[in-house]
This record gives sequence, structure tokens and C-alpha cells, in this order.
Amino acid sequence: MRQRKITLTEREIPEHWYNIVADMPNKPLPPLHPGTKEPIGPDALAPLFPMALIMQEVSAEKYIAIPDEVRDIYTQWRPTPLYRAYNLEKVLDTPAKIFYKYEGVSPSGSHKPNTAVPQAYYNKQEGVKKITTETGAGQWGSALAYACNLFDIDCDVYMVKISYHQKPYRKLLMQTWGANVYASPTPRTEAGKKILGEDPQSPGSLGIAISEAVEAAAADPDIKYSLGSVLNHVLMHQTIVGQEAVVQMEKAGELPDIVVAPFGGGSNFAGLSFPFLRLNLEEGQNIRCISSEPSSCPKLTRGVFRYDFGDTVGMTPLLPMYTLGHNFVPAPIHAGGLRYHGAGVVVSQLLRDKLIEARAHDQLECFEAGVQFAKAEGILPAPEATHAVATVVQEAERCKKEGKSETILFNLCGHGYFDMKAYEDYFSNKLERHEVTTEQIEASLAQLDTPVPA
Amino acid sequence: MRQRKITLTEREIPEHWYNIVADMPNKPLPPLHPGTKEPIGPDALAPLFPMALIMQEVSAEKYIAIPDEVRDIYTQWRPTPLYRAYNLEKVLDTPAKIFYKYEGVSPSGSHKPNTAVPQAYYNKQEGVKKITTETGAGQWGSALAYACNLFDIDCDVYMVKISYHQKPYRKLLMQTWGANVYASPTPRTEAGKKILGEDPQSPGSLGIAISEAVEAAAADPDIKYSLGSVLNHVLMHQTIVGQEAVVQMEKAGELPDIVVAPFGGGSNFAGLSFPFLRLNLEEGQNIRCISSEPSSCPKLTRGVFRYDFGDTVGMTPLLPMYTLGHNFVPAPIHAGGLRYHGAGVVVSQLLRDKLIEARAHDQLECFEAGVQFAKAEGILPAPEATHAVATVVQEAERCKKEGKSETILFNLCGHGYFDMKAYEDYFSNKLERHEVTTEQIEASLAQLDTPVPA
Repeated sequence: MRQRKITLTEREIPEHWYNIVADMPNKPLPPLHPGTKEPIGPDALAPLFPMALIMQEVSAEKYIAIPDEVRDIYTQWRPTPLYRAYNLEKVLDTPAKIFYKYEGVSPSGSHKPNTAVPQAYYNKQEGVKKITTETGAGQWGSALAYACNLFDIDCDVYMVKISYHQKPYRKLLMQTWGANVYASPTPRTEAGKKILGEDPQSPGSLGIAISEAVEAAAADPDIKYSLGSVLNHVLMHQTIVGQEAVVQMEKAGELPDIVVAPFGGGSNFAGLSFPFLRLNLEEGQNIRCISSEPSSCPKLTRGVFRYDFGDTVGMTPLLPMYTLGHNFVPAPIHAGGLRYHGAGVVVSQLLRDKLIEARAHDQLECFEAGVQFAKAEGILPAPEATHAVATVVQEAERCKKEGKSETILFNLCGHGYFDMKAYEDYFSNKLERHEVTTEQIEASLAQLDTPVPA
Repeated sequence: MRQRKITLTEREIPEHWYNIVADMPNKPLPPLHPGTKEPIGPDALAPLFPMALIMQEVSAEKYIAIPDEVRDIYTQWRPTPLYRAYNLEKVLDTPAKIFYKYEGVSPSGSHKPNTAVPQAYYNKQEGVKKITTETGAGQWGSALAYACNLFDIDCDVYMVKISYHQKPYRKLLMQTWGANVYASPTPRTEAGKKILGEDPQSPGSLGIAISEAVEAAAADPDIKYSLGSVLNHVLMHQTIVGQEAVVQMEKAGELPDIVVAPFGGGSNFAGLSFPFLRLNLEEGQNIRCISSEPSSCPKLTRGVFRYDFGDTVGMTPLLPMYTLGHNFVPAPIHAGGLRYHGAGVVVSQLLRDKLIEARAHDQLECFEAGVQFAKAEGILPAPEATHAVATVVQEAERCKKEGKSETILFNLCGHGYFDMKAYEDYFSNKLERHEVTTEQIEASLAQLDTPVPA
């Protein structure tokens, strides 16, 4: 019997997270104060995050030990399985070998609990009573709701209003785990009031919801804020995915030629790829790491490297990153987790140094690839995950054309069982292509008056 | 680190299904012809099922080898994990040790593919071009759609009309895997036309949908029919669940005192419990096996042991089973998979012989237990699965009262991610208790003119 699934035991759950900063040839540039535009230190983040996470954020240590209590909770769904996609290879009639790491087995159905759990843990350690956050499609909000429930921490989720109404079941899942879910913009914050004052019918955006969650946390010392991507400590927590995958690929007797993952803020991509990038940086391997973003929100492929805010209102520190401008409003595609104007600092620096690649796909191409995958492999991918599948299909077709038997690994970061409306729209031809014009991008970037990195 | 999850490798997937008939002290009574009411042999089933499955249905062999091709597909999600529910134990403050086997990791999210895959395989072996079936809540229909897609067999699913409209995403999942889904009753069959003639607005029922699927298959030699529970070969395929669990409990160093599983037609319960019942029958162990049924459809706790039809119209053979009468219409509870008037022949005989136990729960009690489980263990159970959780909560509370540290294992047969409407109704107090009166049951049974077993 050929081996389809490569599993690990609980004892093989990694004991450390990997911090790629230690191996980067060019270190990330410092964040700047939103007002003074001067570099800021760890203390500036103290109103928002517990000190343990801030120290991880600025750490140059290569490995950070995972607390036993976190590893114990990880056993609820980790190690996750890694599959050889024999059926997909057959359908694509490709000489490529395709593998995927499946993160959809977590309680909330995506990779997000990998960081939600340690974030809740460190907050609990420091006596935090409540955590605020934002969520778009709801994957991050439900992961944090799950984690806060485990540690008996209150959880306030500012959910983008249009998703709040379109995805009642994601909201209900968060509520089942005890979270309070608010449709953002809300009248609960100054940021929300400002937006509602300008447009009472505002459908909200991830940038606005971040502004609200940050404001609510900054106002009270018992409340902290939590982010589901972009920041270095978040990316680092996700490296548990790639570390497991390195061991699993070794067990399968294969080293990937290509590693692919969807790209929203960077944690999904970093989680799988950084431990393979380590092999490039440390052992001189030559693994191509490709991030897959939506063509409707193409910060990596068509944005600029620039200091920019993480939110819409301009409350967060300025971060050096690939961005479309913090006022850029992406089209309402179904891959809500990828509709963010910027990219994580570390990933941005790696792209700037040409150590990783980026590729954009239209949503129609993504859903087509997603359905092809579901028919072949049985698992229905989340809309975010279909972006990686689309890249894999392209690479597998290239391998066929070139007659090359390359090994491709991708992150099937979540299942689509809460996204059936998206598939329904796809099947009934309600989805459209979303071309972003160069004028739109230039107009958004022209509004930036933030520093240009050297 | 304490062990929460007990996993097995692909190589540990069982090589045989277990046929409890070989070990039963009293063998099941024979099925009867629906017209002559005389015992029928295997040949009578040939219009509906491929011969390999019929031979399994009537087999007295203790073990049936699982074909390599089926085991290969099982590796897509098997072996499934078995968990120690430490968090639930803590919440219930019980000295009992609680374990659960989790079948929700399958592509369609329940235990149903365990039998859908071998059924599709044997049909393919015998050249069948199309398979018909019925589905209520949609778990069985989606499992068969998944399996037929793998073997390139057409799949026609007669879905109970009320579910067809209430659960569009289950329907969409089946369509994604290529199945044709019809809202039953349909004008495609004589059975459907008859019902529609009497009531054009009929919401349908599982019994009606079975009549339609059976009629469609019987009319064409290239078409066969497939059933997701009740029959012995179906129960036998599910024993892969319990066989894995026996090994996993051994690895955990525990023999269960109590094994619990939800009960619809019997395959869920049989799958987990029969390999443990084997330990009772063969090795003299004394493991209590408890089936959990809805109090709105209490065939095991309040039905009679009687020959009855499997469908509403009266097309199937007469089976000796616990039944509420084939015209019994259960209240529209959300656990659609448990709304069936009868019980599998083998399970019925075991209950008659007092080798297993049965318990009924109201749906409010079940959802309360389900939410308690989701908050403690992270996984949101399917409404069907919450019935087992409700029994477990009762037993854990008894253990607390009696100060006994018993070991309880139950089947978490599926996740509830396609059943969020049910949880929404529960949270918004829209669910009602559904008491069945003795008069209702007596009225339904009074319509039966079928033979009474000796």
C-alpha cells in the first residue's frame, strides 16, 4: 500500500518556534512612531501587548521554547497530517509530486489557533482580563475565541460589518466559545464613531476594525490587543507548521523544490515556508518559496516597499512593508483573510531581498482550482487556501510541459465548510473577475505621506 | 506532558471488518418477502445490491478482508484520532475518565465514508454505472457522493425535501463531488408521484426517499441502490472505528467500562461498540454498550420488536427489528440522521438479548451537552453526536455521585459545521421539547399488519 498520509506522534510536536530574523542577511528596519516618525522600542508596544510577546516580537534568538502548557493544547489537533496528493497528480497528469500540509483539522478549521493559543497563554500569564481583536472572514476571530475560552479570558471581536451579516455561522461559532462579537464600525469607539459619522452605512473593513480593537485595548490596562498575522511573533508561532512539514517530508524521502502558501498578512506563508527557507539560508538548499495572493489585493506583486500604517485610521506604528496604501479598499472577494493592504515586515524584507517569490491569482482561477482539488482529494479548501492550489496547478502544468518531476509542497491552511456561500456563488456564476487598475493603485499610494525606507 | 491524543499509523488500519453475527448467541431472524411474507435468500436482493455486498450481508464469517484499494482510500482520513477529554472531565468535576473517538476528520465530516467507500468499490467491481440513495440531513448523501466520485460512478441522491431547502450547503457539497440531488418526493418515481398526489406540499421523509431510491434502482440493471445504515454489511464496514479504538484504548492503558454511541439505524453505534462487544462475548469482559437515541424517535426504548418495512411505501423486505411502525413520523428535530422509525436487525437482536442498552434524550438536553463539549474540548459536535455526549454527561455525573472512576468511551461521529442553523436555533431558544405520547406510538404500531416474530 502506497503511503498517502505522513503523520507524526504527539512527542514529535516541535519544542521551539523558529525565528527567521536570526538568519536573515538584512534585518528588518525598525518600526516608527505614528506621530514623531522616530524609531520606537519595545516599550511603545506595552499598552497593546503583554511583555512576553513584545520580547518575542523584537527577539533575535533563533529558537524560542514553546511552553509545555501550549504544547499540551497543541495536541488537540497537532501534529497535523501531511498528504501526498496522488489523485490531484493524476487529474493534472503531471510528473510533479504534490504534497500538502493540512491545517483544517484544528478546532476552528484553519492554521490560526497555532498563534491564538500562545497569545492567549502569555496574556493570561500577565494577568490580562480581556483581549480585543478584529476579524474579516472570521477565521482569526474564531481561533482567538477558542483560545481565550481555554484560558478563561474575555474576548471582544470587532468583525467587519459586511462579514458579520454575510457569515452568521462564523459569528455563532465565536459566540459558542464565549466571545462578544461586534459589527464594525461600531459606536463603541472614537474610530468607529468617526467612520459612522462620515458614512452611517459603512460596510467596514479590516483596517477600520483594527483601529477599533486597538483603541479599545489602549484605553484600559486590563485589556490587551491581539493580531492574527503581520507581526513577527505571530509569524514565528506559525513556524510549527513548517517544522513539522520538514520532518514529514524527510519521512516521505523528499525535499521540496517548491513550497507554496496563501498570502494575507504573511503568517500562513511564513508558517510553512520559513523552516524551509532556513534550509536555504543555513544549508545552501535552493527551495523556491512562492506566496499566493489575490490579484484584487496585490501588495506583493504590484505594491511598493514603504513605511505604512497597519490600520486605516493611522493609530498603529509605521511598519516597513510592501503595501497598497492603508486606504486601499480591495474588492469584496470571498477570500476575506487575504483582503489586507499590507504585508508583514519580515516577509516584506525577504521579498525585497529576492529570497522569496510572489504570485497573484484571480478569484475565478482560484475557485476553479479549489473545486478541482475537492473532487480529487476530497477536502473542500477554504477560499484563502485555493490561492495556493492555483499556484500549484500552474507549477504542476509547467513541470508537465518541461517534463520535470519536481516536488511541490503547499499549505492547505483550512477547510471551506464555513464558506459554502462562496462556492454557491462560484457555481451559479455570480463571481466576477476583479482587475485592479494601475491608476487605482497609484491613487491609493499617492495619499501616503509616510517615510520612504532607505 | 500528559497524552491527550492517541494516534495510529496508516499501517495500523485494520485489515478486516468484524462480523458480530459469528459471535451472537442468537442469530438474527431471516428477512421476509414483502408480498409473500416468506423468508427470502440472497438472490432476492440482487436487483438492488452487487453480489459481493449481498454475500457480506448474509455472511457468518467472523472477519471479512478489506480490499487494498479500500484501505488505500481509508488512509485519506484513517486511522482517526482517539482523545482523552481532560477538559470535559474537569468541567464535569467527575472522577470518570472520558475518551472519544473522532470521526469528523473524514472528507464529508462524519463516519459515513467508512461504508460509502467500500460500497462504491464493490459496485464498481461489478460494473454498476449509477448508484441511488436517500439522505435526510445530508451526511450519508455527501459521503456516498464523495465515494462515487472517486470511482467515477454516477450518484443520484433523493434528499428529504425539507432538508433540501433547509440545508443548501450539504446539497452543494454533494454537487461539488458530482452527485445529482433531487428534492424528495419527486415526480421521477411512482412512489414519489403517489405521495405528491396525496399531498403536493409533502415535506418528505426518510422512508419516502428510500422508496424512491429503491424504485429507481430496481427498474434498471445498470443501477444499484445503497443504504447508509441498518443493514449488516453497513454495520460491519463501520467496525473499523471500534477496532481502531480497541487498539488505541490499549495504548492508553485503559479498558472502557462503558461504550456510548448515537443511534439512528445502528451503524454509528455498531461501528464503535461491536469490537468491544466482541471482548464481552469472546473474553468474558463486562463492557456496558449504550446506544443514545432521540426521545422524539424512541424505537429502542419505546418501540416493539416486530417485522416491519424499511421504507414508507412498503417496497423493502420485512426485517425483524425494533420499530415504531413504518408510518411513524418523528418530529422535525435537527438530528436528521436519527429520525428513522426502525433499527438494524443485528442491533435489534442484541438488544432483545439484553447484550446492549438503550437510552433516549430530548434535543434540548443534547444541545446543552453539545455546547458544554464544544466549550471544553473545542470541537463542535454534529447534532447526532450530541446524543452520545448527553449519555456521557449522565454517566459521568453518576460516577461522581457514586465516587467511581469508571472509563467511558464515546463516538464523536461528526462535526457540526454544516449544522450551525441548529445551534443558532438552540441559542435563540427556538428549539422545543418533543414528547412522544404513548397514544402516538400505539396508533402508529396499530397500523402494522406484519408478522410478529416468535
